[in-house]
Amino acid sequence: MTLEEKVAQLLTVGATTRDVLGEGQRFDPAKAEAAWPDGIGQIARPSDARRTAPAGEAVPSDRRWRTPAETAEFVNAVQRHALTRTRLGIPVLFHEEALHGYMATEATMFPQAIALASSWDPELVRRVNETIAREVRVRGVSLVLSPVVDIARDPRWGRIEETFGEDPYLAGELGVAAVLGLQGEGRTLRPGKVFATLKHMTGHGQPQAGNNVAPAPLGERELREFFFPPFEQVVTRTGIEAVMASYNEIDGVPSHANRWLLQDVLRGEWGFRGAVVSDYSGVDELATFHHVAPDIQAAAIRAISAGVDSDLPEGLSYRTLVQAVRDGRVSEGTVDGAVRRILSLKFRAGLFENPYADPKAVGRVTGNAEARTLALEAARKSIVLLRNDGILPLAPGAHRRIAVIGPNAAVTRLGGYSSFPRQSVSLLDGIKARVGSKAEVVHAQGVFITRSEDRSLHEVELADPVRNRELIAEAVETARGADLVILAIGDTEQTSREGFAKNHLGDRTSLDLVGEQNELAAALFALGKPVVVMALNGRPPSWPMVAERANALVENWYVGQEGGTAMAQILFGDANPGGKLPVTVARSVGQVPLYYNHKPSVGRGYLFDTTAPLFPFGYGLSYTRFELSAPRLSQRRIRSAGTVDVEVDVANVGPRTGDEVVQIYVCDEVATVTRPIKELKAFRRVTLQPGERRTLRFSLGPEAFRMWNADMRRLVEPGAFEIMAGNSSAALKSATLVIEE
Amino acid sequence: MTLEEKVAQLLTVGATTRDVLGEGQRFDPAKAEAAWPDGIGQIARPSDARRTAPAGEAVPSDRRWRTPAETAEFVNAVQRHALTRTRLGIPVLFHEEALHGYMATEATMFPQAIALASSWDPELVRRVNETIAREVRVRGVSLVLSPVVDIARDPRWGRIEETFGEDPYLAGELGVAAVLGLQGEGRTLRPGKVFATLKHMTGHGQPQAGNNVAPAPLGERELREFFFPPFEQVVTRTGIEAVMASYNEIDGVPSHANRWLLQDVLRGEWGFRGAVVSDYSGVDELATFHHVAPDIQAAAIRAISAGVDSDLPEGLSYRTLVQAVRDGRVSEGTVDGAVRRILSLKFRAGLFENPYADPKAVGRVTGNAEARTLALEAARKSIVLLRNDGILPLAPGAHRRIAVIGPNAAVTRLGGYSSFPRQSVSLLDGIKARVGSKAEVVHAQGVFITRSEDRSLHEVELADPVRNRELIAEAVETARGADLVILAIGDTEQTSREGFAKNHLGDRTSLDLVGEQNELAAALFALGKPVVVMALNGRPPSWPMVAERANALVENWYVGQEGGTAMAQILFGDANPGGKLPVTVARSVGQVPLYYNHKPSVGRGYLFDTTAPLFPFGYGLSYTRFELSAPRLSQRRIRSAGTVDVEVDVANVGPRTGDEVVQIYVCDEVATVTRPIKELKAFRRVTLQPGERRTLRFSLGPEAFRMWNADMRRLVEPGAFEIMAGNSSAALKSATLVIEE
Repeated sequence: MTLEEKVAQLLTVGATTRDVLGEGQRFDPAKAEAAWPDGIGQIARPSDARRTAPAGEAVPSDRRWRTPAETAEFVNAVQRHALTRTRLGIPVLFHEEALHGYMATEATMFPQAIALASSWDPELVRRVNETIAREVRVRGVSLVLSPVVDIARDPRWGRIEETFGEDPYLAGELGVAAVLGLQGEGRTLRPGKVFATLKHMTGHGQPQAGNNVAPAPLGERELREFFFPPFEQVVTRTGIEAVMASYNEIDGVPSHANRWLLQDVLRGEWGFRGAVVSDYSGVDELATFHHVAPDIQAAAIRAISAGVDSDLPEGLSYRTLVQAVRDGRVSEGTVDGAVRRILSLKFRAGLFENPYADPKAVGRVTGNAEARTLALEAARKSIVLLRNDGILPLAPGAHRRIAVIGPNAAVTRLGGYSSFPRQSVSLLDGIKARVGSKAEVVHAQGVFITRSEDRSLHEVELADPVRNRELIAEAVETARGADLVILAIGDTEQTSREGFAKNHLGDRTSLDLVGEQNELAAALFALGKPVVVMALNGRPPSWPMVAERANALVENWYVGQEGGTAMAQILFGDANPGGKLPVTVARSVGQVPLYYNHKPSVGRGYLFDTTAPLFPFGYGLSYTRFELSAPRLSQRRIRSAGTVDVEVDVANVGPRTGDEVVQIYVCDEVATVTRPIKELKAFRRVTLQPGERRTLRFSLGPEAFRMWNADMRRLVEPGAFEIMAGNSSAALKSATLVIEE
Repeated sequence: MTLEEKVAQLLTVGATTRDVLGEGQRFDPAKAEAAWPDGIGQIARPSDARRTAPAGEAVPSDRRWRTPAETAEFVNAVQRHALTRTRLGIPVLFHEEALHGYMATEATMFPQAIALASSWDPELVRRVNETIAREVRVRGVSLVLSPVVDIARDPRWGRIEETFGEDPYLAGELGVAAVLGLQGEGRTLRPGKVFATLKHMTGHGQPQAGNNVAPAPLGERELREFFFPPFEQVVTRTGIEAVMASYNEIDGVPSHANRWLLQDVLRGEWGFRGAVVSDYSGVDELATFHHVAPDIQAAAIRAISAGVDSDLPEGLSYRTLVQAVRDGRVSEGTVDGAVRRILSLKFRAGLFENPYADPKAVGRVTGNAEARTLALEAARKSIVLLRNDGILPLAPGAHRRIAVIGPNAAVTRLGGYSSFPRQSVSLLDGIKARVGSKAEVVHAQGVFITRSEDRSLHEVELADPVRNRELIAEAVETARGADLVILAIGDTEQTSREGFAKNHLGDRTSLDLVGEQNELAAALFALGKPVVVMALNGRPPSWPMVAERANALVENWYVGQEGGTAMAQILFGDANPGGKLPVTVARSVGQVPLYYNHKPSVGRGYLFDTTAPLFPFGYGLSYTRFELSAPRLSQRRIRSAGTVDVEVDVANVGPRTGDEVVQIYVCDEVATVTRPIKELKAFRRVTLQPGERRTLRFSLGPEAFRMWNADMRRLVEPGAFEIMAGNSSAALKSATLVIEE
């Protein structure tokens, strides 16, 4: 390979780049050959087609995409070119977004990541990702930029919805499941599989002041104990093929320039063999944002030297590497290493054997009935019941007229990294379908959250408060004639999102409901009728007034395209909620950061307020009642390399079949460094019939007890450990284990 | 010395301990000999006399102290005993609190630390501390537990008022000044001097979630760049004799067990030769709070091994060291090192030559006219004018009837670590004295902030809102008849304080005014009369509504015993405000942490809010106008070991004599690690007559440009540096300096 051909493998071309496009967003081989004579490493998001609009007008969100068939055709045209018209015939690697569904038209949109995490069901997450993989791969794409295993500790941050929550163990288990679902076992892709990209390494989930891409205020032990584990779990337990560096800096070192992070830890300590890719423009930002390089060439040199193999999504910085090698500023050997990892990924993806999409299969595979069934199941399992005075499940026939009110009632909110699925079911749709003619369903908007519902808008404006107050009055009139109010409130894809520019923001300084939603809720509560609040949201529901006054509060998050059906099933008792919070819900932003696995010196208290959360990590109610025993240990004492079995009896003592998530936490009572007051180390979601009792057995080995000691060595320190079991981080029974030398 | 005698030198006895007290809080030598046969290292706070009260009643705050004469007598009785009745005749070391005045009855109370920092006047801080030293030393005490050079980055934290603010350079300069004022030059005390204790090492000022003593989320570079500098400055530029370890942990290691911090950095890198003392019960808390030791003996071993020489205030943990040495759990050599440092401190304090207080001088030295004059000057110089639509200074005779309203109008709030000075002047007193018969001064309470004004109460209750609304109505009536409202609002010593227990809290989740103070302000604004808001507070005034609507807003902090006179002088233009904010004032808690010297990746923005502060660091207005030139550099290019002179012209172009603080900031434009967007590196407060113009010259050497690079080495990295000059961190003009190899 020439140096130019090598560097070309490290570059990415946007699928909307004029360089390679002719008429109608079609790939133009002549243009590509002129612009990219040495081949193309990757193409970013082939489903994305930034169509032009008349000057001054935005392209509507739903027209910014290639259709499934167009995408497959585009991919195939590119591959034909790469294989037959470039000197080396190296196929192109395509990547796509697929956080909770393939982010491309007609693909199935599953519940948002934080909702999937609320299922506490790794097997579900694996199956969801299997379906995602199929829908992606059929269009000829073999790499997706998911999952996210960032530890989320700041709900101001608009990306909290993209995470599996705040716990390293839960995020690790779900991350492993997601990767296995996407990739399958091993490091070679089988049909219908795609490579995953583990992101973002690391610290992204605790940005300073909740501001996206701000520095992560973390020391090395904090990194190793809380932020590394999910990454390490995925790297060591799956064939994960790509890791994405995070935008943020840690202690002065941006991750794209962090050799210790990407080489010493990721490749050295954990044995990662795949490719490290940049976050979009993350290499450029070393120069333009972090100012740790004077220009993009210097940025490229820093990044590739730190271990970043591939420059997404446009490759501006890495283009300069040809000259940098010629000038002796970086060795060709360093470039070779990166090229080797990218080519190796292409080989293992089977791109040399099977480079093409199957346009005929696209329609059959995408958004099909099987996927929809799974999306419905996932939605049902993701829903968390946070409060219930007994009104739920709604008694059949008890309510003749149901008012479904609120800005999130009649629309299907899908959350960040969504596109436009073939179908979707709003809460209102779902309720209407469920009650049929047995009750009258009336609807009022209540308020608008934002001025426009167009997700593609950069600048977000709040809806007009004056108009909203008129709508609140109308909603009150609507509710007055009903005997039950179902109030759908929360976020939109504009109020909770990844902010990526000064004019495209997604982080907030308040955690409470946006706009006049609290006013709407208060006006409805004042009627004295039962009010069930359905939360559809990306941020945790730090809505103290609503939580206190609602007869029931159901956390649905962005619950996916079939969410309306699932929510109706939950409301009417066809399904029993069994989800649990994967994050602590703060009462207000003044408590932030607030997470359950904190050190003993946190939480002394506030004057005129509390350090207690609104809802604790691991919390969620059911329509039935469960009794859990204290944990029983197979041994009272074990050796430091030993394993203890923990048994917990769980019984359904209520009237309905239901799911419970039994959670096992550990606390190292005394150690050479401070240890969290509790840490999740095992969990299992089980379904029990009324009257059923089951004994669950969990095995805790050294990985449940080890820690990074004062010398930053990982080991199990002998001593007493509290082993706790329960159905929330705040409702636990204990036993004591002694670990000997 | 026997082992028992050695360990006794590391112990502290509380001055209220029954062990040593007989009738009437007097020292009882027989008791002391029985309880402390091997001598006494230190006695804590001899001015403190926890008098008993009838069961169920609290002792009123002003009765919990020994009088000045009683203190001196107590000290002398102890010393007579130590020198004549213990085998070795080693004098006792007494320590006291003296953050902004000797915290003992009748002593002079100066403005709180954050107010003194607002003066940006190191010479003033030095003089204040000279006076403090005299008042302390005359009672026979030779060690004080001040100054605080913690970097304050979380205004939720109730101790923010005890700091010199958020900037390492400002805190360092003021810390050096305070120590020189207390100790004088050199390491041997002259008459009237006391040793200082530098505290708290370190990280205390950025506690997690603003909760006192919570972990500091800091990496090593962050520590070295922002938290260490003021400590290092004091250690290397003064004869500081004691350093106090901080309660908090950093990355899993509590400071009292942090050998790297106390030995490698403090003693090793900086060459500290004095004693490290524990914060009160900080050693015990290694076992009882942080759980890094199974019991207090293990805690003692960890602490002394980490470099803590003395166990304050009761020595419970260190008492166990005798047995620990006997059992071979810690070497006698380690104990010897600590003893050597404590004895050395006693020698240098002159305690062997001059152990006694001078009871006859106590009355003359304490709270005398000279001290009061200085307290008045300090108050005047500490006041910061934040907003002024031209109403200030008040025109003589323009207001016939002045309503002085608010919960902080008629009381002198002194802040944390205060006691009861001989005299104090409230705002109302000051205004009345100033206007005499020229205007009528009317007063209304407006609201009460808390239910009780007793500072000694642990549990704080908010004042009754119903009663407050009656008081607001009365205040509105009072104001209606006036042509000017002066509104005194803010904190009390109960709402902003050091929280030390679950039932004694001082941190808050909201930064806005406590209780009904905003309602009071809004009611007064609604009258349409001019309203001057006088802020008397410990937390920065994150009061957006008040700041927006007030005709003028004056930040006084807790301005000391003579504050009322100073505030009146400012209001009526006898003095011209020249203070500057030593902290960034956030608009709301949702922006926290918010500080000016942040990294470039902070502050992209919030949806529906701003990352801009309410008032920036370094900000403050004057009654005159100043024009500042752009900085002129003596050279455009220097070597990395070189120095550049920066000249700034400052001109008073307004009508009055006034003070301006010219501030020099530096930004390293590109570096191998991320650098703050600006950092204060020099400043000078100058007084200019109307029409006067002066050229100020600042010299910036390598210490202004150096940084901790990617390999954690401190050096100057060649390249371009922006040199900025102005009168606030947000109003700067620039020049570019190039530093060559």
